[in-house]
Amino acid sequence: MVEPQSRDVVKALLKQVAADGRTALTAPEAKQVADAYGIAAPGEELAKDVDAAVAAAARFDGKVVLKIVSPDILHKTDAGGVEVGIEGAADVRASFHRIIDNAKAYNPEARIEGVQVQQMLPSGPDAHEVIVGAVTDPTFGKVVAFGLGGVLVEVLKDVTFRLAPVDADTAVGMLDSIGAAEILRGVRGGEAVDRWAVAEQIRRVSELVTDFPEIAEVDLNPVIATPEGALAADLRIILAEGEQPVRRTFSRDEILAAMNRLMKPRSVAVIGASNEEGKIGNSVMKNLINGGFAGDIHPVNPKADDILGRKAYKSITDVPGEVDVAVFAIPAKFVPSALEDVGRKNIPNAVLIPSGFAETGEHELQQQIVDIATEHNIRMLGPNIYGYYSTWQDLCATFCTPYDVKGGVALTSQSGGIGMAILGFARTTKTGVSAIVGLGNKSDVDEDDLLTYFGEDENTQCIAMHLEDLKDGRAFVEAARATVPKKPVVVLKAGRTSAGAKAAGSHTGALAGDDAVYDDILKQAGVIRAPGLNEMLEYARALPVLPTPQGDNVVIITGAGGSGVLLSDAIVDNGMQLMDIPEDLNEAFMKYIPPFGAAGNPIDITGGEPPSTYEATIRLGLTDPRIHSLVLGYWHTIVTPPMVFAELAARVVAEERAKGNVKPVVASLAGDTEVEEACQYLFERGVVAYPYTTEKPVAVLGAKYRWARAAGLLT
Amino acid sequence: MVEPQSRDVVKALLKQVAADGRTALTAPEAKQVADAYGIAAPGEELAKDVDAAVAAAARFDGKVVLKIVSPDILHKTDAGGVEVGIEGAADVRASFHRIIDNAKAYNPEARIEGVQVQQMLPSGPDAHEVIVGAVTDPTFGKVVAFGLGGVLVEVLKDVTFRLAPVDADTAVGMLDSIGAAEILRGVRGGEAVDRWAVAEQIRRVSELVTDFPEIAEVDLNPVIATPEGALAADLRIILAEGEQPVRRTFSRDEILAAMNRLMKPRSVAVIGASNEEGKIGNSVMKNLINGGFAGDIHPVNPKADDILGRKAYKSITDVPGEVDVAVFAIPAKFVPSALEDVGRKNIPNAVLIPSGFAETGEHELQQQIVDIATEHNIRMLGPNIYGYYSTWQDLCATFCTPYDVKGGVALTSQSGGIGMAILGFARTTKTGVSAIVGLGNKSDVDEDDLLTYFGEDENTQCIAMHLEDLKDGRAFVEAARATVPKKPVVVLKAGRTSAGAKAAGSHTGALAGDDAVYDDILKQAGVIRAPGLNEMLEYARALPVLPTPQGDNVVIITGAGGSGVLLSDAIVDNGMQLMDIPEDLNEAFMKYIPPFGAAGNPIDITGGEPPSTYEATIRLGLTDPRIHSLVLGYWHTIVTPPMVFAELAARVVAEERAKGNVKPVVASLAGDTEVEEACQYLFERGVVAYPYTTEKPVAVLGAKYRWARAAGLLT
Repeated sequence: MVEPQSRDVVKALLKQVAADGRTALTAPEAKQVADAYGIAAPGEELAKDVDAAVAAAARFDGKVVLKIVSPDILHKTDAGGVEVGIEGAADVRASFHRIIDNAKAYNPEARIEGVQVQQMLPSGPDAHEVIVGAVTDPTFGKVVAFGLGGVLVEVLKDVTFRLAPVDADTAVGMLDSIGAAEILRGVRGGEAVDRWAVAEQIRRVSELVTDFPEIAEVDLNPVIATPEGALAADLRIILAEGEQPVRRTFSRDEILAAMNRLMKPRSVAVIGASNEEGKIGNSVMKNLINGGFAGDIHPVNPKADDILGRKAYKSITDVPGEVDVAVFAIPAKFVPSALEDVGRKNIPNAVLIPSGFAETGEHELQQQIVDIATEHNIRMLGPNIYGYYSTWQDLCATFCTPYDVKGGVALTSQSGGIGMAILGFARTTKTGVSAIVGLGNKSDVDEDDLLTYFGEDENTQCIAMHLEDLKDGRAFVEAARATVPKKPVVVLKAGRTSAGAKAAGSHTGALAGDDAVYDDILKQAGVIRAPGLNEMLEYARALPVLPTPQGDNVVIITGAGGSGVLLSDAIVDNGMQLMDIPEDLNEAFMKYIPPFGAAGNPIDITGGEPPSTYEATIRLGLTDPRIHSLVLGYWHTIVTPPMVFAELAARVVAEERAKGNVKPVVASLAGDTEVEEACQYLFERGVVAYPYTTEKPVAVLGAKYRWARAAGLLT
Repeated sequence: MVEPQSRDVVKALLKQVAADGRTALTAPEAKQVADAYGIAAPGEELAKDVDAAVAAAARFDGKVVLKIVSPDILHKTDAGGVEVGIEGAADVRASFHRIIDNAKAYNPEARIEGVQVQQMLPSGPDAHEVIVGAVTDPTFGKVVAFGLGGVLVEVLKDVTFRLAPVDADTAVGMLDSIGAAEILRGVRGGEAVDRWAVAEQIRRVSELVTDFPEIAEVDLNPVIATPEGALAADLRIILAEGEQPVRRTFSRDEILAAMNRLMKPRSVAVIGASNEEGKIGNSVMKNLINGGFAGDIHPVNPKADDILGRKAYKSITDVPGEVDVAVFAIPAKFVPSALEDVGRKNIPNAVLIPSGFAETGEHELQQQIVDIATEHNIRMLGPNIYGYYSTWQDLCATFCTPYDVKGGVALTSQSGGIGMAILGFARTTKTGVSAIVGLGNKSDVDEDDLLTYFGEDENTQCIAMHLEDLKDGRAFVEAARATVPKKPVVVLKAGRTSAGAKAAGSHTGALAGDDAVYDDILKQAGVIRAPGLNEMLEYARALPVLPTPQGDNVVIITGAGGSGVLLSDAIVDNGMQLMDIPEDLNEAFMKYIPPFGAAGNPIDITGGEPPSTYEATIRLGLTDPRIHSLVLGYWHTIVTPPMVFAELAARVVAEERAKGNVKPVVASLAGDTEVEEACQYLFERGVVAYPYTTEKPVAVLGAKYRWARAAGLLT
């Protein structure tokens, strides 16, 4: 924590810069800020004329760097405004004149305040240029960045991001999160840099931008990191223009109270309920009734007395008793007045199926309903959604086809199309689901609300979310951090590659592509990011089925050597470890397999083996406590047909589970089409099995491992 | 081409090094080799004492570098044996003494021949360190490497490889094949390096190692590349120990003649044919007969007169007439004598199903059959295989289940397990197949033989190969280069990640992990590398179905905005370009879609549209000649149900194809389970469609694009 008086110095300085109508600080101003926040930088002075420059250089030890100071020149190097390694009065004098001339040639209009004379930085093989910076991300707010500096890294974009502020441990962890991390630890005889000194630069920058939200970007580029310390060679600070809009916020208790009534309602009203086939209000009513919802269902329609055999009300205000959820199935233009009625009736949740709001350019109409909801304290799901399913309540408040396979995964989607893909996939694979929720325009309820609820929901063991943006990245991270220790959170973030280049005044800004920031911050929040739609669906299906691994030792038992090689590839690709099998365990396996079967890992039991060999080796894998996960490679033969394998594998796994040997088991089945039935059989019995792919079973196991690590269940 | 006398200089020098019992050349020797091959390097002299060093430094312009010269010190920097930037007699003198002292401290036993005095290399922001090298790869022989030099790239392993020798164009292409390519083109005001000078260093190194196979590794590390040229600052040359074994080779005509008789036989004999259920010789006979093979089928069994209603022969030599293929279904130990008989009968092909050879450690037995085959000029498939299918001949010479869906893809697998996965996948997806071939131990016939044949086979439009190694990488590359211009070649290379670190005496050697070399060389050969088994199978299924794109403009037409975003991500991920839609075309599309539908690309027709909107927009996409490929995103609605969409899309595509508008069309279907039937319907009509995934259809289109580029069909 910096001293209040230091903070006041910066406050006054930034106020002056803003008063000047500038957004960029000059180098001397930036140095003042650095000094106030303890950001280590070399000694320097602003020389307004050549004699002052010579005098300043004489005061510093050894060589100096000279740099132009002008509020109109941001890229000093491009302007020929930087000279390094200058020593002695004559050279300083010549350099000063060259720099001024270059600057005038570069921009004749530039206001030139002088030349900064700066103590020369350490160099040599153990001095590494790194970049430390901070930007204001539209989703996550203040984030700090760290990377290796210099031209090469600008090209390779090897940087990492964290939410500001960071503590020292988080900051030092950033040094290990870049691709070239090894370099800072010293390679080929080089010495390691002072990691804590670098981390301290990151931490202090994060503190600075947290204290002063008006700072849009900070660039320490480069910081020279050596075994002795870390000095910021150049500092750039840019202020923000304009203000960020503010969204409604709710406390955790408020969120849980509202979401509980949304997901477990006792009474639902359908505004726009209809008897007419093909109408949304008809589909929603049918799904509610046929889905078997045990609570009250109240149709609202001014033109009908009776809808699908239930008494209809002219207005929602006529409905007797408390209502938890009002589902809207009316055109957009009628929504505001109906929403006023919902507010008057004190209904806490509005589910807005209609489209025709922000997504079609009707931003004003959307703002209007947000204002009404704010006034009446209504939580709104949507608009522009398919509705939602809460399977354990037998609740299908949607115009889509019903879904009733109860299970452990809660899914949400920002897009209706993806919602339909979820539904089809879940049905064809018999995925057990606790909820499917459409989020659409997210005018109010968004991922963090639902994540908070699903984190507490006893029926939900895994949450999978498709999203294109987050309305409040920090709230999402908070909800994810609260949830991940209890259950896995899978995110499919769409729009990864569309971000493109953003105009930015700093290096950090240019490096902070939307997706780079999302990727790092979601990872820090412990979220498992699915690379694509199909992976999200497969993770959602499999994660609740797989037990949590108790350690890192993965063992492959395979009947097909070829599958073993591909499974090994996949294990390394997915960041897991093939167990190095101890001699006694190796011998124990070899007892069951032919003498030419391969020892080690994969354990290749060879292709022609009977069911007893699969059974004995799988059982050994489950009972030996040093093994933590099994990956099975099955090969279709006459000796051990697919369903024989499936039955024995499922039985052995069940028997060992009953004895307390609970381990994740996944399987890749290679064979003729009978392996498909075998996979389904296995999946339904807790063995995650796929036909014709060695990648999927391992990818799913890898996702479980990633979660277990994020949840702190593995060291 | 270097002069013969220069080559003689190197020849004599290498002979002397070998005679000395050394494998590493000294720096002065390496400089002699560089001079002979025109590899540009700075002026240098070996100084045997301190006065000679001072004199040498005086002869060079400016600063010098001093380096220890000792046959016992390979890593000079680690030994403190390198000092740079030395200028003036006094400094040269001091540096000379330091280096000698350091070397003696590093290795007191080291024989010290003196200190090399070397002209100082260019430095500054436009001087870049690059590495040029050559290694002897176990699969591909001599390969050259290029990367950015220095510590950073050693960590990031940003290098590229080519088969040696390379011409100047290939060499200069290597500069663009590294991740940090941009740097050499000049970034942030820097000047580009002299690309042709760098390329010339690569070309000359490649010529050197081609001329002298006994050179195992060459390292030019670093080469200093500047806008003015490229100088090798350090040169290391290491000779090979021992010889590489040589395999049988065949001419292209010989290969085609033998493979034609293997894949289109008129007569097949089964050695070990059996009446006994469950025996391999019984399964093979049944498959041949029931598969409908129209040629002769001759069972051979010394103990039977009749097998499955056909006359059996005691020995293969008793079979009347010419036989094209002898399928072996007998235990390994009986194979050699039966193979002798096959040779005596002049049968050109032996298909060796039995296991029990090299894969179980029986290397001698395998060598024995290789020797017999060589003597009798028999081509051998296997041993240790499931057999093979040649569907257009109705030939199932295998003990697996039969397969008869004729089509355009030929598949091979090194492993039996993967062969079974191919079979099951093909059956469940109704993939049209021209052949499935097991390669097993590859004692003789391998991927290049089959690739050569399938390249010419009129029924084969695409070849997909699973392999764990290549017996002769150069022969494979040659076959691939001959085939790729005609049809796509897909390779699943297993064992990617198992290579691990190899002991290597050079930087290039350390960087040349097996997979890095495979990856670059396969790419150069125009092969599409599948990242996993499932991708290989999907590419195999889809590539023959998709027409070749005529240009780079990909357009997405989607009913679900959410799918559009994910499809865009996938298009960028797969190296394709979303077309920048011209204004007139945009207007043409907007005529068919609601006013709030999104212009641009993706073209978002919005969710509620009737079949006519899909039809009109797809037709426009097919007819406008500026669009080259279509990616469809379908969203299941009541207005346009899945089969209605499938029928209209298939019909429009067929109608436009008939008019000559032939373009690849892929589709992602989001919806309830009816989309599965719709996808199968579309696939069978040439529209590559998948349910519940936005990634797969785009990945397959991407594979087609990669092939079209490799085949020179797109610029």
